[in-house]
Amino acid sequence: MVQNIFYAQSGGVTAVINATACGVIESARKSKKLGKVLAGKNGIIGALKEELIDTSLESKRDIAALRHTPGGAFGSCRYKLESLSENKAEYQRLIDVFQAHDIGYFFYNGGGDSQDTANKVSQLSLQMGHPICCIGIPKTVDNDLPMTDTCPGFGSVAKYVAVSTMEAGLDVASMAESSTKIFVLEVMGRHAGWIAAASGLAKDNPSAPPHIILFPEVAFDKVKFLARVKQTVNRVGYCVVVASEGAQYADGRFLADAGAKDAFGHTQLGGVAPALVEMIKGAHGYKCHWSVADYLQRAARHIASATDVAQAYAVGEAAVQFALEGKNAVMPVIKRKKTKRYGWEVGEAPLHRVANVEKKMPKSFITKDGFGITGKARDYLEPLISGEDYPPYKNGLPQYVRLKNKLVRKKLPTFVPS
Amino acid sequence: MVQNIFYAQSGGVTAVINATACGVIESARKSKKLGKVLAGKNGIIGALKEELIDTSLESKRDIAALRHTPGGAFGSCRYKLESLSENKAEYQRLIDVFQAHDIGYFFYNGGGDSQDTANKVSQLSLQMGHPICCIGIPKTVDNDLPMTDTCPGFGSVAKYVAVSTMEAGLDVASMAESSTKIFVLEVMGRHAGWIAAASGLAKDNPSAPPHIILFPEVAFDKVKFLARVKQTVNRVGYCVVVASEGAQYADGRFLADAGAKDAFGHTQLGGVAPALVEMIKGAHGYKCHWSVADYLQRAARHIASATDVAQAYAVGEAAVQFALEGKNAVMPVIKRKKTKRYGWEVGEAPLHRVANVEKKMPKSFITKDGFGITGKARDYLEPLISGEDYPPYKNGLPQYVRLKNKLVRKKLPTFVPS
Repeated sequence: MVQNIFYAQSGGVTAVINATACGVIESARKSKKLGKVLAGKNGIIGALKEELIDTSLESKRDIAALRHTPGGAFGSCRYKLESLSENKAEYQRLIDVFQAHDIGYFFYNGGGDSQDTANKVSQLSLQMGHPICCIGIPKTVDNDLPMTDTCPGFGSVAKYVAVSTMEAGLDVASMAESSTKIFVLEVMGRHAGWIAAASGLAKDNPSAPPHIILFPEVAFDKVKFLARVKQTVNRVGYCVVVASEGAQYADGRFLADAGAKDAFGHTQLGGVAPALVEMIKGAHGYKCHWSVADYLQRAARHIASATDVAQAYAVGEAAVQFALEGKNAVMPVIKRKKTKRYGWEVGEAPLHRVANVEKKMPKSFITKDGFGITGKARDYLEPLISGEDYPPYKNGLPQYVRLKNKLVRKKLPTFVPS
Repeated sequence: MVQNIFYAQSGGVTAVINATACGVIESARKSKKLGKVLAGKNGIIGALKEELIDTSLESKRDIAALRHTPGGAFGSCRYKLESLSENKAEYQRLIDVFQAHDIGYFFYNGGGDSQDTANKVSQLSLQMGHPICCIGIPKTVDNDLPMTDTCPGFGSVAKYVAVSTMEAGLDVASMAESSTKIFVLEVMGRHAGWIAAASGLAKDNPSAPPHIILFPEVAFDKVKFLARVKQTVNRVGYCVVVASEGAQYADGRFLADAGAKDAFGHTQLGGVAPALVEMIKGAHGYKCHWSVADYLQRAARHIASATDVAQAYAVGEAAVQFALEGKNAVMPVIKRKKTKRYGWEVGEAPLHRVANVEKKMPKSFITKDGFGITGKARDYLEPLISGEDYPPYKNGLPQYVRLKNKLVRKKLPTFVPS
C-alpha cells in the first residue's frame, strides 16, 4: 500500500530549511512507492490540529522555488511534546491523525529537541500497533547536533556572519581616526559558539577584524576583555568584537538576559552588544557602534552558502531514500570525506544517539586567550561557507515563493494541543 | 601646468563610496591634463596633517577593485571645519598643503556638511589668491541631499533593508503561531525616513511585511502604534515593524537617545528597536525579536544595488570631467529622466544650493496613517534598488581590496588640527 509522508518543520527556521523541504518533495514525487507529502501547518502543531497541507497541489515550479526561499514555507513551531507519561493523549493524537490520513512516514526537520520527538514517536507507534517510519532531518543554525559534520542552516548563517564582519570591519576601520573606534556585532549561539566562530573567517591577517570573539564556551572576564579592547585600539586603531548571544560570566549568568523563556524553557536572550558597549564606553570612552543581527542572519538567503544549500537539499533527498529503504529512527547526516580537498557525502545516524545531545565547539577550536579561532577551526569552517547560491531577482528583490498551502479535509474531531 | 587632484572621503562611509573613488581615479588616469590623484588619509584630516596618499602607486587592478569594495579605502572622518572667523588657520593650512603639493582640484566626497566645506574652500582659495577648483561629490546613505534625484550610497542600503525586511518577515511568519509574533528592525535615518521607507518595497500585498514603518517625519504616537501592532497580529498573525533610528515623539524627543554627540554636534542614536519591543511586551505580552542593522546596512556591498554602484561610479567620473571643463563649486547630481522606464543621467548643481540643506521625504510619500509608503514613494524608490552587482568571491568570502596607501613625502611643518 502506498503511504503518505508527513513532513514538519520545527524550531527556529533557517535560510535553507525550505531547500530541505524541496529535496523531500521533489524526491518523493519521483517515487511511485510513496504517496503525497503532507506538511504540518506550523510544524507538529499542524499534526495535532489535523491541519495538513497538501503539497501535491503546489506546482513543480513553486516547489523548485523552495530551494531558494528562506523561512519555513509551511510554518514552524516551538512546541515540545511532553513525555509520554505526562501527556499520552498528544502521542495518541499524532498516531490517530497519521492513521486517518494514511501516513506511514514521519519526517521531522529540526534540531535536537525535534530528533528526540521523532525518536519517541517511532518507539511509541510500534507499541501502539501502527508503526510509523520516523526519519529525523537535521536543521539548526546552531550547528550543535552530534553525529553530523555540520547542520544544514549553519553554513549560510556562518557565511552571513563572516561577510558582515568583514564589511562592517572595513566601515569602522575607515571611521576610527576621528569617530567610531568600536563595533560590536551580536550573533546567535546560546550555548555553542559556532556562529561567532565563523566570524573569524573574515580575519585574513593578524590586524584584521574580528579582533575579539566572545564564545559561550569561554567564561567572560570583564577586566581581561576591556584590556584587550584597549590594546587592540592602540595597536590597530579600532576594535571589532563579535559576541555570541550566549556569552556568559563564569557563574553562568548571561551578559544579557531578556527575562523571557520560550516553550522549551530556554531563556530568551538579546542585548549582549549594547551591554558590551556600555562597558567599553564606561571604561575607555571610545565612540561605539553596535548591531544585533538576530533573524536577519538566519533568514539571509540572499547570501546563502552554496555548500549549505546543497547539503540541505541532500538531507531531504536522503530522508526519502531512507524511507524507501525501510529505515527507521535514523537521521541523515553530513559526513566529511577524508580528502585533502573538501568533499562530503550523506551518511546516517540512529536518532537515539542524536536526541538531546548538544555538540559544543572543541576546545582546540578556540585560541588560548579565549578571544579567537585556531587554524583547526578555520579548516573546519571554511568549506562550509564556500560558494554562492543567489536567488533569482525581479525589480531589485529576491523572488521568494509563497505556497498556496491548502489543507486536506479534516477527518477527525477537534483536538486542542496543551 | 598639470595639477594634482586632492580627493577626500567624508562622514559615514557607504557600500559604494569606493566606487566613486574608482570613478575619480580611473577617469583622472585617462587624462593627460591632470596630475596624480592624492587622497586624504582619513579624509580632510589627511590634508590638514599633510598625510596624502599617492594613489598613482596603486595597481590598475587594485583601483578597479575599489568598485566592489565597501568602506572608505583611504579612511574617512567626521571632522567639520569651523567657520573662517573661528579658525582661519585651518583653511590657511589647507591652501598651504594644496600649494605645496601642486593641488589644483579639491574633490570632496560626502554629505551636506562636506559640500558646505567644499564651497567655503572654493570661495576662500579665491580670496587667498590660490584658486582651487572645488567639486563636491555626493555620498550619503541618508539620501537627504537636495538637487539630486538620489544620493550614491542610498540605493544599496535601501536594497539591503528591503531584502532584509522580506527575509526576516518570512522567518517571523513561520514562527508566529507558537513563538515570535513581533519583529522590529531598526535602520539608519536620523532626520529623514528614506531608509525606513525603502523597507516598504518588500510589501507586495496588503498582508505582507513591513506592517508598520516609523519615520522621523511622523510624530510617534504610542497609543496608536500599540493599537496597530495588535490589529496587525489579529489580522495576519504577526507584525513586522521597521523603525528609523530617528523616530521621535511630537516634542522632538528621540525614542532612543544614546546620550553621546558626534563631532558635528549630532546626537548619537541607537536602541529604538529594544525600546519598541519593551513597549510591545509591556502592552500585549507578545514574544518579540529585534535587530539593529547599524553598520551592516551601509557596508553591505555583497547586496549592493547595481544602479547605485553605477551612479556612484558616474559621479566620480563626472567630477573629473567637470574639473577638465574648468567648472568650480559644483556637484554632479543624478537626474531622473522623464521617461516611463527608469533612466538617469548626470547633471550638475552649484554647491551653495546643496550645502546645509536637508531634503526630507515628501509628505506624499507617507500613507495617511503615517505607517507606510505610498505608490508615489514606491515609484521613486524601486528603480534605485534595481539590479545586483556582486563582488567576486574566493573561499566563500568577497574579495575586497586593501590598498597600499603610501603617503607622499611631507614638505611642510607639522600642523595639529583642532
